[in-house]
Amino acid sequence: MKIKVIVTLKNGVLDPQGKAIQQTLNGMNFGNVEDVRQGKFFEIEVKEKDEKKAKSLVDEMCKKLLANLVIEDYKIV
Amino acid sequence: MKIKVIVTLKNGVLDPQGKAIQQTLNGMNFGNVEDVRQGKFFEIEVKEKDEKKAKSLVDEMCKKLLANLVIEDYKIV
Repeated sequence: MKIKVIVTLKNGVLDPQGKAIQQTLNGMNFGNVEDVRQGKFFEIEVKEKDEKKAKSLVDEMCKKLLANLVIEDYKIV
Repeated sequence: MKIKVIVTLKNGVLDPQGKAIQQTLNGMNFGNVEDVRQGKFFEIEVKEKDEKKAKSLVDEMCKKLLANLVIEDYKIV
């Protein structure tokens, strides 16, 4: 089954890429954009029919590879 | 208000980054990972209280900057 994960920077961690996007949008007449934060999105196809087991596997993957828990949070959706 | 957007590669578009992640996971004893696709995630803070208007603004941003519609799809969540 397919499990989706969103990895985002923790609050307080600087996001220069998001800042650049925000400034670009402001310059394109989207003046009311106050902040942009960019994160990552993963769609993982796991050979596992039990949703709970699949999610727990993906949780382990996030901890070991997909997210840097020092500066990032992850959410399995 | 804060609007979230997920940008993913269209089906059929090669995703070498996702492939690399999949192979790494396979090598880390996650043998049952069959496919990984990576996308982007944006959190956009718009100075606009009406949710419908905010989403329609973000939709315009996606079309003009955030997504490359030739190879990517986007979803406002």
